[in-house]
Amino acid sequence: MISANENFTRIPENYIFAEVARRLAEYKKEHPESDVISLGIGDVTLPLPYPISRAMAEAALDMSTPCGFRGYPPDGGYPFLREKIAARYADFGVALSQDEILVSDGAKSDLAAFHELFDFSCAMQSTPAYPVFGESCLLRGKRLVSLPATRENEFLPLPPKDFPLGGCLISICSPANPTGTAYDRAGLSALVDFALKSGSLIIFDCAYEAYIRDDLPHSIFEIPEAKYCAVEIGSFSKFAGMTGVRCSWCAIPRELRIGGTEVRALWSRRQNMKFNGVSYIIQRGAEAALSDECKPLLRANIDYYMENAAIIADVLRRHGIYFSGGRNSPYLWLRCGDSRGFFEALLHAGVVGTPGSGFGALGEGYFRLTAFATRENTIKAAARLDKFLQSDNNFTSYNP
Amino acid sequence: MISANENFTRIPENYIFAEVARRLAEYKKEHPESDVISLGIGDVTLPLPYPISRAMAEAALDMSTPCGFRGYPPDGGYPFLREKIAARYADFGVALSQDEILVSDGAKSDLAAFHELFDFSCAMQSTPAYPVFGESCLLRGKRLVSLPATRENEFLPLPPKDFPLGGCLISICSPANPTGTAYDRAGLSALVDFALKSGSLIIFDCAYEAYIRDDLPHSIFEIPEAKYCAVEIGSFSKFAGMTGVRCSWCAIPRELRIGGTEVRALWSRRQNMKFNGVSYIIQRGAEAALSDECKPLLRANIDYYMENAAIIADVLRRHGIYFSGGRNSPYLWLRCGDSRGFFEALLHAGVVGTPGSGFGALGEGYFRLTAFATRENTIKAAARLDKFLQSDNNFTSYNP
Repeated sequence: MISANENFTRIPENYIFAEVARRLAEYKKEHPESDVISLGIGDVTLPLPYPISRAMAEAALDMSTPCGFRGYPPDGGYPFLREKIAARYADFGVALSQDEILVSDGAKSDLAAFHELFDFSCAMQSTPAYPVFGESCLLRGKRLVSLPATRENEFLPLPPKDFPLGGCLISICSPANPTGTAYDRAGLSALVDFALKSGSLIIFDCAYEAYIRDDLPHSIFEIPEAKYCAVEIGSFSKFAGMTGVRCSWCAIPRELRIGGTEVRALWSRRQNMKFNGVSYIIQRGAEAALSDECKPLLRANIDYYMENAAIIADVLRRHGIYFSGGRNSPYLWLRCGDSRGFFEALLHAGVVGTPGSGFGALGEGYFRLTAFATRENTIKAAARLDKFLQSDNNFTSYNP
Repeated sequence: MISANENFTRIPENYIFAEVARRLAEYKKEHPESDVISLGIGDVTLPLPYPISRAMAEAALDMSTPCGFRGYPPDGGYPFLREKIAARYADFGVALSQDEILVSDGAKSDLAAFHELFDFSCAMQSTPAYPVFGESCLLRGKRLVSLPATRENEFLPLPPKDFPLGGCLISICSPANPTGTAYDRAGLSALVDFALKSGSLIIFDCAYEAYIRDDLPHSIFEIPEAKYCAVEIGSFSKFAGMTGVRCSWCAIPRELRIGGTEVRALWSRRQNMKFNGVSYIIQRGAEAALSDECKPLLRANIDYYMENAAIIADVLRRHGIYFSGGRNSPYLWLRCGDSRGFFEALLHAGVVGTPGSGFGALGEGYFRLTAFATRENTIKAAARLDKFLQSDNNFTSYNP
């Protein structure tokens, strides 16, 4: 007998970003004259820095020459890229060797796959959360426990000291998607302590670390004991504007063992079986993103997005709307009452965002805006938001 | 409690191709003067046809311009590529629309992922087999049944008519890896009949269809009823020599339902959750591979590899060694006695292949050689094989 995996009933019928895209397409069909601006999906808009494009173009052309051709990429990625990623960790004072870095095609793929390595009685995630980790665990039939990220804990929850379930798989994203908040050293230390004491494993998603401006950790491995209880998943998507290029990595310290088994070995076995690596061309682009030539260009792009964030934040502050993020993060997470209602109302005002309920029930009452639009569109969208919130009616509805 | 996924004990400790690569590296260290030739891993060696490289280089450079930049690829792939793949199906007389084609980063990824969509009491695969489908099912804790591919059935097994287990998930590769044999229309029809009668779903891997020269089906959808019981996974790796570029597709007919649920919808939900698509640059390369300009270039490359196959086949025939494949397939599957012993002996003679036992216990007694080396290396390797088999001792050991 075959049937649809019953665990699909445990996750929302539609993926949140697909749902938003579908509603937007529908709205545009109904209102062909509208020029809705998307601050919805967290997708970058600035062109790639030229050195990244140049490196990929050269690699692509090389592939048509007898000397430059490359077949299947080596397991874990090309050493030229793994070394550069390890060197970036050294900038944060983190010592990782290139064989502790495993190149992949996207943080989402790795967050989806990691739980396969283990048997565990429950997974825990800071919630609201980007869907992939939790939904993947639910699709596998695993129990998922929320660590509620609330206004009261500044969206930076810590596991309760008396957590009754023993060791679990913990997913943490910092700076967080969608709340835009980031753990400080004390917060990460507390997470690491909990993991070590309870025998848990942390999957740390640092996709937004390049947006940190304050004195906050960029990597969980800045807490030295983390190498005994954590893996870290990093991405070129937001750091280098490479969402459409697809490259990421997973850092797995050689010290990390679960019940005597090296986690790095489990990951390699899983990847050998299920994945054939990232294109040579793309890996050359990622290498270029880590070059000295690119550093100021990436910094300028991130500054640009953070100025966008400031423009949106200004409007929210002017109207007394509570929000987190927009600092150390390209996301703004604002209080909005009914989040699907707010989504619809704001859509009619010409701006698309993401309803908080799309990040789990604990996201209800909030709304996510991104700073990744062009400057021109951000200014326009901010003006529309401003006008929308000026109506007393909207203000009372959406700022309860 | 977390521990290593216990199902890892159900699969071989090492992935076969990683194991072969490790042994080769070890051997080279012990014998630094040796110039071993690899006919092991099925990796192509000819440079990419220039139009593919050019298309990717142009796309890469476009990405650094405001007009040419692209962020996350659309779900299921860019329409420009999906249309081209659908048009290729039309060449085989198969009508599929572009929304029935879902672009992915590799056939391996899709073969690993597909079982996640379903609950099923058992999976069945033609064995010996490329490891990914079976190992993925075992890692998920599912029962795996072998459909033995033997010399007696010309390595083209059909499920027994009285199969007692009801509907199951069936993985079939044709032309087959590793045996190099391909089903004819009657064989595929029988498979489709079985699937329809038993309520099974076929996952059909056509990664090697471009190597077919005889009048054999290139797609399972050449059997019209297959659209009610099969999905097909195709790849640019061997068809267009793009192993190092990474692009593939999954064809899921809109008619295909399991227990009333559209399989295409399940796949989309899974991919939305776990995958962010294939790079724009790579998709432009794949589009170019399907252009009229590329057609004769790809054909010439495949002819080149098939001439390599003929060179190896000649040696085997001369020595009276039984083999399948090498016709309609870039693989030669030869009788060898103890396959790990043959591997070691042939390695010392300067040629690397893949021991049959790496494709499952039913592969024992056989050995896989690939036609993907350069011509120069193929000629050298064939001469070494010839010399190796000339020894009476080797002949009796390895042709029992």
